[in-house]
Amino acid sequence: MFIAMNRFKVKLGSEAEFERIWRERDSHLATVPGFVSFDLLKGAEKEDHVLYASHSLWRTKADFEAWTRSEAFRAAHRDAGASKVQYLGPPQFEGFESVLSQTAG
Amino acid sequence: MFIAMNRFKVKLGSEAEFERIWRERDSHLATVPGFVSFDLLKGAEKEDHVLYASHSLWRTKADFEAWTRSEAFRAAHRDAGASKVQYLGPPQFEGFESVLSQTAG
Repeated sequence: MFIAMNRFKVKLGSEAEFERIWRERDSHLATVPGFVSFDLLKGAEKEDHVLYASHSLWRTKADFEAWTRSEAFRAAHRDAGASKVQYLGPPQFEGFESVLSQTAG
Repeated sequence: MFIAMNRFKVKLGSEAEFERIWRERDSHLATVPGFVSFDLLKGAEKEDHVLYASHSLWRTKADFEAWTRSEAFRAAHRDAGASKVQYLGPPQFEGFESVLSQTAG
């Protein structure tokens, strides 16, 4: 399993708009080969920002990379950058491979 | 859904020992109420360390917090710190609430 995360530091006051954009975007993900699930995560609230992370699960890293080269990816990101959301710095990408896995028994 | 992550900067050369400890520990997680799944994640390899993250899914944040106060939690962490693994700094905890969710259709 491969997890792709993008971390966003959203300035206080921009949270609702940031969440609205993600809620309303047409991600085109549902039918992408190897896609498992997507979550928008809300993390800690700091003095000047809230940490958010997009969090998607893929069958393999190769599936994720194929998606980033696809037309579906371009379509999902077409409107990125056009919003009024204020950030502290650029998003930070992190990819992870699962090396050990356990589910509830 | 709640995601609890602990980020570890493992010095180069300690990766195998770090993974062994996680593989061999008795996590006692399987029967904890609200526990969904656990993964040990391996991230980017940098000049002087590899980023790892423990990554667990919980039905709710309250389920996770109840676990951290339980005897099962104490048992799972009994041997933490006794290993020869070398780290760059202490682990960094991050908790996330899912605010938006999508699965493969």
